[in-house]
Amino acid sequence: MTIKRKKISVIGAGFTGATTAFLVAQKELGDVVLVDIPQLDGPTKGKALDMLESTPILNANVNIVGTSDYKETADSDIVVITAGIARKPGMSRDDLVTTNAKIMKDVTRQVVEYSPNCTIVVLTNPADAMTYTVYKESGFPKNRVIGQSGVLDTGRFRTFVAQELNLSVEDITGFVLGGHGDDMVPLLRYSYAGGIPLEKLISKDRLDEIVERTRKGGGEIVNLLGNGSAYYAPAASLTEMVEAIVKDKRRILPAIAYLEGEYGYNDLYLGVPVVLGGNGIEKVIELDLTDEEKHALSKSVESVRNVMAAL
Amino acid sequence: MTIKRKKISVIGAGFTGATTAFLVAQKELGDVVLVDIPQLDGPTKGKALDMLESTPILNANVNIVGTSDYKETADSDIVVITAGIARKPGMSRDDLVTTNAKIMKDVTRQVVEYSPNCTIVVLTNPADAMTYTVYKESGFPKNRVIGQSGVLDTGRFRTFVAQELNLSVEDITGFVLGGHGDDMVPLLRYSYAGGIPLEKLISKDRLDEIVERTRKGGGEIVNLLGNGSAYYAPAASLTEMVEAIVKDKRRILPAIAYLEGEYGYNDLYLGVPVVLGGNGIEKVIELDLTDEEKHALSKSVESVRNVMAAL
Amino acid sequence: MTIKRKKISVIGAGFTGATTAFLVAQKELGDVVLVDIPQLDGPTKGKALDMLESTPILNANVNIVGTSDYKETADSDIVVITAGIARKPGMSRDDLVTTNAKIMKDVTRQVVEYSPNCTIVVLTNPADAMTYTVYKESGFPKNRVIGQSGVLDTGRFRTFVAQELNLSVEDITGFVLGGHGDDMVPLLRYSYAGGIPLEKLISKDRLDEIVERTRKGGGEIVNLLGNGSAYYAPAASLTEMVEAIVKDKRRILPAIAYLEGEYGYNDLYLGVPVVLGGNGIEKVIELDLTDEEKHALSKSVESVRNVMAAL
Amino acid sequence: MTIKRKKISVIGAGFTGATTAFLVAQKELGDVVLVDIPQLDGPTKGKALDMLESTPILNANVNIVGTSDYKETADSDIVVITAGIARKPGMSRDDLVTTNAKIMKDVTRQVVEYSPNCTIVVLTNPADAMTYTVYKESGFPKNRVIGQSGVLDTGRFRTFVAQELNLSVEDITGFVLGGHGDDMVPLLRYSYAGGIPLEKLISKDRLDEIVERTRKGGGEIVNLLGNGSAYYAPAASLTEMVEAIVKDKRRILPAIAYLEGEYGYNDLYLGVPVVLGGNGIEKVIELDLTDEEKHALSKSVESVRNVMAAL
Repeated sequence: MTIKRKKISVIGAGFTGATTAFLVAQKELGDVVLVDIPQLDGPTKGKALDMLESTPILNANVNIVGTSDYKETADSDIVVITAGIARKPGMSRDDLVTTNAKIMKDVTRQVVEYSPNCTIVVLTNPADAMTYTVYKESGFPKNRVIGQSGVLDTGRFRTFVAQELNLSVEDITGFVLGGHGDDMVPLLRYSYAGGIPLEKLISKDRLDEIVERTRKGGGEIVNLLGNGSAYYAPAASLTEMVEAIVKDKRRILPAIAYLEGEYGYNDLYLGVPVVLGGNGIEKVIELDLTDEEKHALSKSVESVRNVMAAL
Repeated sequence: MTIKRKKISVIGAGFTGATTAFLVAQKELGDVVLVDIPQLDGPTKGKALDMLESTPILNANVNIVGTSDYKETADSDIVVITAGIARKPGMSRDDLVTTNAKIMKDVTRQVVEYSPNCTIVVLTNPADAMTYTVYKESGFPKNRVIGQSGVLDTGRFRTFVAQELNLSVEDITGFVLGGHGDDMVPLLRYSYAGGIPLEKLISKDRLDEIVERTRKGGGEIVNLLGNGSAYYAPAASLTEMVEAIVKDKRRILPAIAYLEGEYGYNDLYLGVPVVLGGNGIEKVIELDLTDEEKHALSKSVESVRNVMAAL
Repeated sequence: MTIKRKKISVIGAGFTGATTAFLVAQKELGDVVLVDIPQLDGPTKGKALDMLESTPILNANVNIVGTSDYKETADSDIVVITAGIARKPGMSRDDLVTTNAKIMKDVTRQVVEYSPNCTIVVLTNPADAMTYTVYKESGFPKNRVIGQSGVLDTGRFRTFVAQELNLSVEDITGFVLGGHGDDMVPLLRYSYAGGIPLEKLISKDRLDEIVERTRKGGGEIVNLLGNGSAYYAPAASLTEMVEAIVKDKRRILPAIAYLEGEYGYNDLYLGVPVVLGGNGIEKVIELDLTDEEKHALSKSVESVRNVMAAL
Repeated sequence: MTIKRKKISVIGAGFTGATTAFLVAQKELGDVVLVDIPQLDGPTKGKALDMLESTPILNANVNIVGTSDYKETADSDIVVITAGIARKPGMSRDDLVTTNAKIMKDVTRQVVEYSPNCTIVVLTNPADAMTYTVYKESGFPKNRVIGQSGVLDTGRFRTFVAQELNLSVEDITGFVLGGHGDDMVPLLRYSYAGGIPLEKLISKDRLDEIVERTRKGGGEIVNLLGNGSAYYAPAASLTEMVEAIVKDKRRILPAIAYLEGEYGYNDLYLGVPVVLGGNGIEKVIELDLTDEEKHALSKSVESVRNVMAAL
C-alpha cells in the first residue's frame, strides 16, 4: 500500500507555533500546516514559505503550508494548538481565561470538523483549563487530547541543574506534577544527575533556589525580553511530544492528562506522568506521594479549579 | 590534549541572528555566543536563555550565551555577522549602505580584537559591499572573510523546482553567480534534478518564471509578512556555511569571495562557487562562461561597484 | 487513530542483511524483522538481539527481532531481500543464477503470503534477473518490486571522485544506467562536482580510470577481504532506498525497474533513473541517449537477457 | 586558524572494531583509521574502503583508512583498542589474560609513539586488567586511559527493562559498578523508568531475573551466534564514549577508571561512574554504598585482582 507522510497541523503562527512548525519539519516528523486567523493569512503564508525555502538546505523532505483555511488541515494526524492571547498589562486573569477559552472552542470545532481522528496537543495558557476546554469541545476520547507543561518545566529545571553541576544536559532528569509555573509540584526525590538523586549532589538551599528559578522560568524570559515571552523551549517541548506520538515511542513524559480517579481527582486535566505513544496518552502513571507532595498537589488542583471556575 | 568545543559567535540577535544561533546550537556545531548592542542586552540574554532551556529537550550539548559585551566572544572560531538595519520606506539605498558599513566597521573592530584568528561570515545587506567592508576593516586574509548570498538563492530556487516537478528537494541543485536577488546570475545549464539538466525537464518559459520568482524571493516573503523579512532560510544558509567550515567539509558552495583576477575581476567581493572548508574559502572555482553569462555577470559587478561607490 | 511504526523485514541475515537491519533501525525508519533460514535461527536471533541491545545507547526507538519464521514478518510495509548465495570458486554463473532464483521464489512466496501489500527491494545478485524473478513470483504490480544496483555503483563512483578532487562527497553526483559492475553504463555527462560537469574538472583518462575502478568496485573489495564481499556500502544503499519509500520522499535514484517500452525495452528489469516514493517506483525517468550510450545500454541488456536465459 | 577534523583510530578490525569505526564515521565524529596486524592488512583495507564507499550515501563527511601501519594513526585525538583474542574452548583464563596483555603492550607502545597526546579507550577483555596494562605501558595520566564495560552492561539492562515495561528505551536508565558480566554490581536503587525507581514498577523476582540476564548478556549472544560474540552493542558503547570525549559533553557514564582512594581502593582500574569529557575522565563520582553493595564491590575487586595476578 502507498506510504504517506504524517500530517501535523499547528494552530497559531506566533513565535511558538511557527518555531514548532519549523522543528517538526526539520525533524521530518511529517508535512506541516501552519494556521492562523484570516487577518494574518499573509504573514502565516510568509513564515511557512520562508521555512519551506530552508528545507533544501536543511535536507528536510516535507511540505510546509501556511493558511487561514482549516480545510488545508484535513486529515491531520496531530494538531498542536498554540493559538490564544497572552495576558496584557491591566487584563484580569479571568479575562484571559474567558478569551482564550472562546478561542479554544472556535479552533477545536474547526480542527475536529476536518480531522476527526487526530490527536490534539494544547499549549495555550492556562494550559490545564484550556486542554479541558478543548477536550469537552472536541468530544474526543481523553487519550487524544493532551496538554503541555511539564516537558517545558523539567527542561528548564534540567538546564539550571546542568549549569550548577557543569554536566551534560543529557544526564539530568527532573520530575514535576501539577500545574505550570507557580503551581508546579517538583518531585526532587525523582530528579537525578546520571541516576544519582540530586539531593545527594546539591545542597537543599541551592536546590530550592533552582526550583524557585524554574517556577519563575517563564517570567525570567518575559522580563529579559521586555516584550513577548519564551518560544524556543516551549516549541521544543511540543515537538518532543509530537515526536513521541508520531513515532509511537511510548515515552514517559509529564503531560496534562484527563484524570478519572488517578491521584484522587476526577474530571480534571492535570500535569502527571504519562506514557505517550501512538494512541496519545497510553496510560497515566500513578505514584505514591508523600503527605507534603499530596498537599502541594491539592493546592495545584485548587488553582486549576479556580481558573476553570472562570469558564 | 584536552578537546574543546568550537565556539561560534553570532553578531546581531534579530530574527536571522537568533535563528542561526539556534540552528548552530541544535546541530552541536559548537558553543554559541549571541551578541547585540547594549540597549538590547536584556532581549539578547532572554533569547539565548530560552534557547539554552531547549537544549535538554533537543539533546544538544552546547552552551548558549547572550550578551552585549564582545569580551564573551573571545577566541571564537567562527563569527557570523547579521547585524545591520533593513531598508525602511523613504530611506535611500545609499543611506542604507552608509549606515550598515558603519555598523560593519564597528562590529569588525570588536570581533577582531577578541578573536584575531576567527573566520567571519557576513550576511548583512548589501552583502557584497558589507563583506568587502569587513574584509578591509579586519585586516584578515581573504580566505577568512566570506559573504552569504548564493546558498539562500539556490535554496529558494531548489524549493520552487522541487514543487514544480513534485520531487524531493534533496535531488534538486541550482547554481548562481554574481549578486543577490536582482543581480543574481543563474546558471541554468548547471542546475539539475537528479543530475538531469533542468532545461530538459521544465519548459524555458516556466524556468524563466522560476528564476524570476527566485530573484524576487526575498521580496515575496517581505510582502507576505507585511512587516519584516525572511529569516528561516537565511539562517539555514548561514548554518550550512558554518557547518562546512567547522567540519572542514570542503564543500562546493556559492559564496561571496574576494576576487584577485578570477572571472576577470580584482579587488572585489562577488558571489562565485568556492570550496568551503576548515580554512574558510579554500579556493575560488573558475568556470568558462558564455558571452551571455559574462554580460550578466558584468552587470552584476557594476551593480556591486555602484553600491561600493557609496562607501 | 492509532499511529503505528512502519515495519521493515530484511530477508537474509548475512553481513549485508544484518547491516541493513542495523541501519534501518538506527535511523528509526521502523521496526525491523531479520529473517534467515531455520538452520540459522540462532545466529539470526543473536544478531537481532545484539542490535536491539544497542538501541538504548544509540537512542533508537524501534524493535528488532530475529527469526526464521515468516509469520513474524506479517504486515511488513517493506521487505528487503538479501538472501542468496555468492558465487563460489568453480561454480558456473548459470549455477549461481539457478540457485538464487530458486531461493528468490521460495522467499517471495513466503513474503507475499504474510505481507501482500508490501513493497519489495531486491539486492541478491544478479540483481536484474533476481528482481525479475521476484516480480513474477510475487504477482505484485511493477511499482512494488524494485532492485538495487545503481545507488551502490554511484556511491563508489562518488567516493573515488571526491578523493580525486579532495572535495566533500556531498557535492559529487554520479549517474548510471544498465547493469551492475561490468555492465554498468555510466553517464559522465550527468555526473558533477558542485553542479560542474566532471569532464571539466578531471581529465578524460583519469575519469576513465575512475569509471573502470567503479566497475570493478565489488571485486576490489572481494580481493582485499580475501574472503567475503562488500556489505557496508550495499547496506547503506538499501537503507537509502527504504528511507525514500518510508518517508515518501519522491527522490530520483537509480534503481532496477520493470520496463514497458521505456528506453525501447519490454518485459525486462533494468537499471534506470526512477522516482522513488511512497508507492515504490512512482515513475521511470526516460532520457535521450547518445548513440554510444544506446549501444552500451544494449550490451548491458543483452547481458541481462543472457542471465535470464539461464532461468 | 585552520579547523581540522578530529582523528580517531580504532585498533583491531574485527567485528567490534570495524563496527565502531563505522559508527564513529557515520556520526562524523572525525576521520577514522582502522588498524590491524600486517597479516590482516588486506581485509582491514577492504573493510575501510567498503565503509568509505558508504559515506556519500550516508552523507558522512569523513575519511576512513584501513592499515597495518601505525604511522597512519599519527596525531590521533582518540584511540580505541579492540584488539585481542577471544577465549577459545580449552584455553585457560590465565592464557587469555597473558596473551591479551602482551597484545595490549605491543599496541600501546605503537599508539603512544605516534599519538603521545591521545586519549585511549580500551574494550579488550578482561577490560579492567587490560585497561590497567595499557595505562602502565602508556605512561599516560590516568584521565587519558579509560575502559569500557558499564555502558554496554547498562545498555543491555535498559533493553530488557524497556521490553518488560513496554516503554521507550530513552526513558530507562541503569546503574552499575564493578566488573563486567558476572562481577557486575547493579545499583537497582539508582535505576529508573522515567525517573521512577524500577523497584516500584517491577517485582523483585522479575528484576532479579533481568539482572541475571544482564550479567549473562554476553554469553546469551555467544550462545545464539554459535560462533563469535556480540559486536553491535559493544561498538555502540565505545562510540558513545568517543562522542562524549570528542564533543566535550561532560556526561556521567559508567567507565573503567583508575582509582586512587575512591571507594577505598588504590592502584586499580574498576568500573565506576565518571564524568567523561574533553579531558577524558574529568572526575570519578563517589557514592555512598550500602553494606551489601560494598560487599558485592569487594568481591568484584577481588575478581579483578585475581585476573591481574596472572599478569
